Amino acid sequence: MMLVLVCPGTAMPTEASELRIRDLGIAPGVMTPGTLNAITDVAGVRVGHRTLVSGESIRTGVTAILPHGGNLFTDKVPAAVYTGNGFGKAAGFEQVRELGELESPILLTNTLNVGTALAGGVKWLLGQAGNEDLRSVNVVVGETNDAYLNDIRGQHVSEEDVFRAIEDARGGPVMEGNVGAGTGTRAFGFKGGIGSASRVLPAALGGWTVGTLVQANFGGVLTIDGLKVGEALGQYDFRDELMQGENHTQADPEEGSIMVVIATDAPVGSRNLERMARRAPLGIARTGGYMSNGSGDFVIAFSVAERRKHADPEAVREQARLANRETSALFLAVVEAVEEAIHNALVAAETMTGVDGRTLEALPLDRLRTLAQP
Amino acid sequence: MMLVLVCPGTAMPTEASELRIRDLGIAPGVMTPGTLNAITDVAGVRVGHRTLVSGESIRTGVTAILPHGGNLFTDKVPAAVYTGNGFGKAAGFEQVRELGELESPILLTNTLNVGTALAGGVKWLLGQAGNEDLRSVNVVVGETNDAYLNDIRGQHVSEEDVFRAIEDARGGPVMEGNVGAGTGTRAFGFKGGIGSASRVLPAALGGWTVGTLVQANFGGVLTIDGLKVGEALGQYDFRDELMQGENHTQADPEEGSIMVVIATDAPVGSRNLERMARRAPLGIARTGGYMSNGSGDFVIAFSVAERRKHADPEAVREQARLANRETSALFLAVVEAVEEAIHNALVAAETMTGVDGRTLEALPLDRLRTLAQP
Amino acid sequence: MMLVLVCPGTAMPTEASELRIRDLGIAPGVMTPGTLNAITDVAGVRVGHRTLVSGESIRTGVTAILPHGGNLFTDKVPAAVYTGNGFGKAAGFEQVRELGELESPILLTNTLNVGTALAGGVKWLLGQAGNEDLRSVNVVVGETNDAYLNDIRGQHVSEEDVFRAIEDARGGPVMEGNVGAGTGTRAFGFKGGIGSASRVLPAALGGWTVGTLVQANFGGVLTIDGLKVGEALGQYDFRDELMQGENHTQADPEEGSIMVVIATDAPVGSRNLERMARRAPLGIARTGGYMSNGSGDFVIAFSVAERRKHADPEAVREQARLANRETSALFLAVVEAVEEAIHNALVAAETMTGVDGRTLEALPLDRLRTLAQP
Amino acid sequence: MMLVLVCPGTAMPTEASELRIRDLGIAPGVMTPGTLNAITDVAGVRVGHRTLVSGESIRTGVTAILPHGGNLFTDKVPAAVYTGNGFGKAAGFEQVRELGELESPILLTNTLNVGTALAGGVKWLLGQAGNEDLRSVNVVVGETNDAYLNDIRGQHVSEEDVFRAIEDARGGPVMEGNVGAGTGTRAFGFKGGIGSASRVLPAALGGWTVGTLVQANFGGVLTIDGLKVGEALGQYDFRDELMQGENHTQADPEEGSIMVVIATDAPVGSRNLERMARRAPLGIARTGGYMSNGSGDFVIAFSVAERRKHADPEAVREQARLANRETSALFLAVVEAVEEAIHNALVAAETMTGVDGRTLEALPLDRLRTLAQP
Repeated sequence: MMLVLVCPGTAMPTEASELRIRDLGIAPGVMTPGTLNAITDVAGVRVGHRTLVSGESIRTGVTAILPHGGNLFTDKVPAAVYTGNGFGKAAGFEQVRELGELESPILLTNTLNVGTALAGGVKWLLGQAGNEDLRSVNVVVGETNDAYLNDIRGQHVSEEDVFRAIEDARGGPVMEGNVGAGTGTRAFGFKGGIGSASRVLPAALGGWTVGTLVQANFGGVLTIDGLKVGEALGQYDFRDELMQGENHTQADPEEGSIMVVIATDAPVGSRNLERMARRAPLGIARTGGYMSNGSGDFVIAFSVAERRKHADPEAVREQARLANRETSALFLAVVEAVEEAIHNALVAAETMTGVDGRTLEALPLDRLRTLAQP
Repeated sequence: MMLVLVCPGTAMPTEASELRIRDLGIAPGVMTPGTLNAITDVAGVRVGHRTLVSGESIRTGVTAILPHGGNLFTDKVPAAVYTGNGFGKAAGFEQVRELGELESPILLTNTLNVGTALAGGVKWLLGQAGNEDLRSVNVVVGETNDAYLNDIRGQHVSEEDVFRAIEDARGGPVMEGNVGAGTGTRAFGFKGGIGSASRVLPAALGGWTVGTLVQANFGGVLTIDGLKVGEALGQYDFRDELMQGENHTQADPEEGSIMVVIATDAPVGSRNLERMARRAPLGIARTGGYMSNGSGDFVIAFSVAERRKHADPEAVREQARLANRETSALFLAVVEAVEEAIHNALVAAETMTGVDGRTLEALPLDRLRTLAQP
Repeated sequence: MMLVLVCPGTAMPTEASELRIRDLGIAPGVMTPGTLNAITDVAGVRVGHRTLVSGESIRTGVTAILPHGGNLFTDKVPAAVYTGNGFGKAAGFEQVRELGELESPILLTNTLNVGTALAGGVKWLLGQAGNEDLRSVNVVVGETNDAYLNDIRGQHVSEEDVFRAIEDARGGPVMEGNVGAGTGTRAFGFKGGIGSASRVLPAALGGWTVGTLVQANFGGVLTIDGLKVGEALGQYDFRDELMQGENHTQADPEEGSIMVVIATDAPVGSRNLERMARRAPLGIARTGGYMSNGSGDFVIAFSVAERRKHADPEAVREQARLANRETSALFLAVVEAVEEAIHNALVAAETMTGVDGRTLEALPLDRLRTLAQP
Repeated sequence: MMLVLVCPGTAMPTEASELRIRDLGIAPGVMTPGTLNAITDVAGVRVGHRTLVSGESIRTGVTAILPHGGNLFTDKVPAAVYTGNGFGKAAGFEQVRELGELESPILLTNTLNVGTALAGGVKWLLGQAGNEDLRSVNVVVGETNDAYLNDIRGQHVSEEDVFRAIEDARGGPVMEGNVGAGTGTRAFGFKGGIGSASRVLPAALGGWTVGTLVQANFGGVLTIDGLKVGEALGQYDFRDELMQGENHTQADPEEGSIMVVIATDAPVGSRNLERMARRAPLGIARTGGYMSNGSGDFVIAFSVAERRKHADPEAVREQARLANRETSALFLAVVEAVEEAIHNALVAAETMTGVDGRTLEALPLDRLRTLAQP
């Protein structure tokens, strides 16, 4: 058996994740971030990573997002999903769509390990105290394809790795860049990764918090807060065909994908959460993404404002609900926080070499700083 | 470790599956079945089972449906999915919805082994000749919850079991009842299982064939070709509350579910396949099902009339397409073949005892024969 | 200009509507109807008809369903829509889908007068006291095609007719058969029309009421509470092709359609109302319908348990919500009440002659009585 | 009755529409526009306007987009719809979604005249040569709310105005700004209107053309090709609440909306047209829109590559279809052409005063030119 040397989620990549887009003087949007400028600004939300970097070919991992620290199955939260472009293998979406509830950690990993993540997530929930009678549970899994740097056919993620990501989950700053499910990803031709951001609405608009986390592995024409970075660096989709009339060399049709997780403390049910999820692609668009054919662009949104007991003795419950007309500011917050989370992923990710000796360069921050000069 | 004694898909249950609804003189619908009256009447379609019956508590399995005998990844077929009621864990639906193509076997199993089926399906495809470069593949998995008879928390299905179901796949008569993914299922309070049926359109309506296969594990008020079987036998949903004003004893909210697979040789693309899939619940309704809250009612439909090469050098292809106005007879065929497949599942399934000593009785065929007398 | 002699909704067809399926000793389903066995069993719901029968060619009308007797725009109700088969011109569905609210009467009419109904509905709402500032309102309109008996190209419905239908709306027994939007319709080859029914859940299941109203204008293989009426009478879809191998004479592809309105007093929001709406086609299936290609099968569901103020000063409100697991009995009630409403439409409708001298016979009730004998 | 002085579509606003975003040296995106940089670059597509400007309070109109110059009912084209945010009254969407075909002009108008547009569109089609037997037709109508400048409660659009817009339809340059359905619209707090743009793919990517037309009436934080125009001009959504902590003064919840029409000559069917439509909001996002709660953001896409005969004697036809993997460049073209069409609407629209003396200023082009200086 192959020996997999694992970098624990809390170790090596720490430094990498300390740089963020705002450290470069770039602050996208008009709204204000939360304290951490991360999904963990939403009270109770936890994020954990299991990073697998081993030898020359293993560059993958698992990221777990938990809506709260209690029993996720017995204390469900309102949730919604949205599929921007369905070229992907996300699992657990049908039941969230039907019931409007999340009852598991959200697990992110690579394309060919969705089955492992699903099996591991189920096993972990079966083992939780209070779930002794659980005989049916819906685990939500997302993925992107890290095959450029990772030996994806090796299916190197194990159920044990899934457990570790879940158990690593905590509040506080979110590690970004080459960690967890972002370890081997690519974005806009550069090294991609995990990124996070948040927005807090002013009190006059309700004061709610919206946090996002992305697994960025997609392409397009990179734009950062209005700066035409992709064009300036000469790297964007279809550049050869557009510039030189070259023949279309069929790109790898599975190149893309981005998973977006949205959390909020606003009292919204599944319908307005679904509307929030539907705005995530607008944030992607602001970075230059366009949901290419081969991109699996999936969004999961949940609210921590309410918990629903699995076996509630009451048939009818009062639920606090935000009026439709109050949702616009939440929508703008989603757009901005998705945009900034993608930037944070790019800024945090460091150059990495992986399978078959391929290297993905980090976004050249010096060039970005120069472009950002007025 | 527990020793699992496995009944190979082709052995024990053979006799059980020989009785069908038409053998009782009951012929639902106005259309004519195909030669086998099974999904395998659609040219090239194959079905395989892996049946797990062991000790007192393992009553589960895997059923695989293959659109053709070639490489399913490199030779995709047009496909669609439809979710009648999404309380279920079906996987692989998002990509079929987006791209309108099926590129894997359809795998059916129990609720808590979807991850295993997914992982096994991916592994099997990775190993197929011609798939050496495959780095992304979408495997479709369906499930129902067999926890009434099966120790579902034991997650007894292995990746090896998945391989065996796929490799067992063949044309010809389809084994029904307590086989494969139907081994431990329950329907209308009786023993459920796998069932299949088909319809052939008259030449004047195109002459196309429609075949169905169901994994029947749901409830309602059983009706067979107009006979009120559930009422006559005193067994149907909410009977106690309706008859005796009894207090509502919260039923197991995960009691239900049915997976429906539809195959056709009609030249229809994903849009009209989705419309065909949307008619499957109408066939369920004719048997007395009503898509209860806890039921995961999922439908997958595909056409064998066309194959799409994974790496087709041509950007544009001519595709034969049936006009919208010609689809009505296909829709009626779906309704009838789903209805009859459910009946066949019930008729073929035999009484079974499983976990915790629970027993599910087979549908009492003598009573049914009596009811069917004019 | 042609003189249109109008039969007011309250006059001529009264007698016709007095006969119902239960008067024939046929009681579909296992649940109990409400007092009126009509949509008006749901407290506050009102129904109005405007029936246009004039000369030899005008056989059409308008039916209005109001969730309550107040200002429908300022006091919205939770609502949902579902499209079983979208070959139809229903209007106002997008906004209900997005916001989960109904803010207008539901108007039913013929296919080519949807624009008129929409314009009339808007005008009526603009004129309501309290709506002086209304500058945007979403009116829901459904339709079926009554061209077999009606000179539909004449677009004989006027905005005035729309006003009259709305103003005719009242509680109490619902007129059925050849009234309002059902005046010229056809179902299963017989005279169709408007029908209504209801179910009341036992107290142990919550005691909620579900009411339905249908505009029945579709086809299939008529089945009444298990009786194979269509086959017995030799009249069903594709009979000639199936029986005699005749060439397929392209049927009028617009033959079909059914509009279903569902009301309840259960405290359900738009998500569970949408799930209730999705069960309406199951009731249609039990009568022998199969959503043919040319059928526009649309469903609108609303709850009277809650009213939402258009300009509520509160951003957040408590809303009573039924748990998901309590919805199953509501789903079965929808199936049964849709089934019975269709039967009531057929039983109430009387033989009618219309445009080009075409006649639609009423369902032969003597034959039905004979078939129903044990 | 009020006398309505009408400015024919071809007259007054001509000059206004001559200035476009590229005339200011701003060229969004990396792809190349077609000759006209308008939807009419797609062969055969026609656009017509009926502009209603009268007295102090009528500022509205109708815009018609025709896929070709023949009989639209007998020669249908493949089509799809997508609803970004459904707070709107668009009509005719259900049937396009079901059948994947467009059989009418696309009509745009104001919110309270959708019924008129629908009735007018039906009447116009009934009168076309070859449609003598038409008894069912689906007319697609979109709208935005021009109540800020227009006496919308007056419902000033007539069926005659609808006829005129359709009959005005022609190829060649598209009039933009304050014309047709854009006459009274508002965008980002400035005068909005009609805009159009196009992209032509390089030969290596298929050489297909994508054209767009928008009716821009929405808000957000205006960004033009990366320039933060809204922030620089101190005008954007929620500015007061964000800047000054002011109390939230409930904005008019119907402030928004944008209708997008997409045409292409690529051989794509309804599924890939729907995917193209789903990218339109990404173009909106690049301009600073975020689909606010009150915005009705609807998209209609069609292909002129194929015509489907209403009564085709053939049941099966060969259809040329682009492979999924070839669609990415079309998606990017949609994003860019929607973005630029919105800019063109803003640049062409001129300051207008309307009902109650309210004035909307044109986007200050001098300020924009200054911002665009490097």
